[in-house]
Amino acid sequence: MKRTVGIIGLGLLGGSLAKGLALHPDYEVIGYARRSHIGAQAMADGVVKAAYTEARAVVEQADILVFALPPDTNARLFEELAPYIQPRTLITDVSSTKVNFARTVKQYIPMGAHFVSIHPMAGSEKGGYAMAQADLFKGCTWIVLTDESEPSWSEAGAQELVAMGEYLGGRVEQIAMKDHDGFMATVSHMPHTVAAMIATLAGGDAHGALRLRLAAGGFRDITRVAGGNPAMWREIITSNRQEVVRALSQLEEQILHIKNLLLTSDDDTLETYLKIAKTIRDDFSHL
Amino acid sequence: MKRTVGIIGLGLLGGSLAKGLALHPDYEVIGYARRSHIGAQAMADGVVKAAYTEARAVVEQADILVFALPPDTNARLFEELAPYIQPRTLITDVSSTKVNFARTVKQYIPMGAHFVSIHPMAGSEKGGYAMAQADLFKGCTWIVLTDESEPSWSEAGAQELVAMGEYLGGRVEQIAMKDHDGFMATVSHMPHTVAAMIATLAGGDAHGALRLRLAAGGFRDITRVAGGNPAMWREIITSNRQEVVRALSQLEEQILHIKNLLLTSDDDTLETYLKIAKTIRDDFSHL
Repeated sequence: MKRTVGIIGLGLLGGSLAKGLALHPDYEVIGYARRSHIGAQAMADGVVKAAYTEARAVVEQADILVFALPPDTNARLFEELAPYIQPRTLITDVSSTKVNFARTVKQYIPMGAHFVSIHPMAGSEKGGYAMAQADLFKGCTWIVLTDESEPSWSEAGAQELVAMGEYLGGRVEQIAMKDHDGFMATVSHMPHTVAAMIATLAGGDAHGALRLRLAAGGFRDITRVAGGNPAMWREIITSNRQEVVRALSQLEEQILHIKNLLLTSDDDTLETYLKIAKTIRDDFSHL
Repeated sequence: MKRTVGIIGLGLLGGSLAKGLALHPDYEVIGYARRSHIGAQAMADGVVKAAYTEARAVVEQADILVFALPPDTNARLFEELAPYIQPRTLITDVSSTKVNFARTVKQYIPMGAHFVSIHPMAGSEKGGYAMAQADLFKGCTWIVLTDESEPSWSEAGAQELVAMGEYLGGRVEQIAMKDHDGFMATVSHMPHTVAAMIATLAGGDAHGALRLRLAAGGFRDITRVAGGNPAMWREIITSNRQEVVRALSQLEEQILHIKNLLLTSDDDTLETYLKIAKTIRDDFSHL
């Protein structure tokens, strides 16, 4: 018998997951979307077997329950829906920060249910079901979080989600839950705030228009993510508040270091710093 | 009679200028390259009419004299060569920072010669004559610096260099000399150091390899310039030392502001900050 994948939220990530799993031989996909026309569209597209505007119906039927709304919304809904989760259910979420949702899950998860978090690193500046696509996860990093010390975590559940990531063409990585948010703060969330800061410094005063006429490809790339959706990034950054602050403090230390090198004319050490950074960046390019 | 453009240095910028002007009806291009095989290659390519391994011969013949070596090297050479510059000569340089070279020029420039600096914002992580191309400047910003209060600056010279930029397909901008280096520090040099810092924070410790496996497109773009040539960027950054320090201090203020918003949970103001940054970035995209 096919297992039922219940997707809470048919936006960019949830919708893409539904589209990507629609033809999976072992799964039957159902979904919750608050607005009925989204669910109707997903049914018309043959992407879900059934769609609901109340999440409870999805929760009660799901063998695998995927929370695919923004992190705070996921947590709010989980608390409401926990009483209806079946003991057999494998719960997961696709949020880009983990600690807050995980805290809620641990508090409310019913006995017998399992929780294994995933973070498919796919996204776009444009969200919503209309942008969702079956191959969104292809070639993207698909992180399955490990959390062996947690009773609700399950190795079998992790393996099921690893297989799901592979089926969708993702590059699967397993990372410890405790490391995830700090790592993400350093490689994504802090850099996002910095992109916004650099855009602000370049263009945010009376000389902005003139200054931006001098900006070139380096500026374009460094600030690209500052074009992202502010409401979405507010939620990502604030759901990882402490780690983003920590990463910004680490950046402040680096700035002090570089300023000190410049002010003392220690140009050899500056060049060494740039060389090491280049080595890291070049290695990353080969990933 | 054709005017002689003498190019000091046939690397990426000087070589591209030579290639781009080789067929110009009003110009004859000659060049200086320290290594004789570079000059021989440029002659074989039909890119220069004559090539020299001593800069003096170029200086003595040039109507337009282009310093196309790194900023400090340009300044050192200028001091040496100033006695041989003809009074009719229009001197320019293509450096990405201006104040240091301009200071040397003002000190040593012979009476009757003119100095109008340009900054063609083209480049590549790969330098050298072999990478030079006639269309390097096409679509790139080509800045002509204005400096009306300076006796050696010339409006006619500026117009000649504007026309040269247009001939090469550049997007010509005129910017005041006094603003240039500060603007560049904010839109390019400071961001370059930040890209190196973010690469260092992400990949520079024992968790680096693991952390970089979580890095995605945002990280790739933000850190791209950290893959640039360390020796070249050392020279660019240190030739604009004071302005880079100033821009880094401005970034520190922004970091303090964002940390404060996060620590006081002033998430609405954070979202407004991200919105303003997005507006600036979106406007820039339309340039």
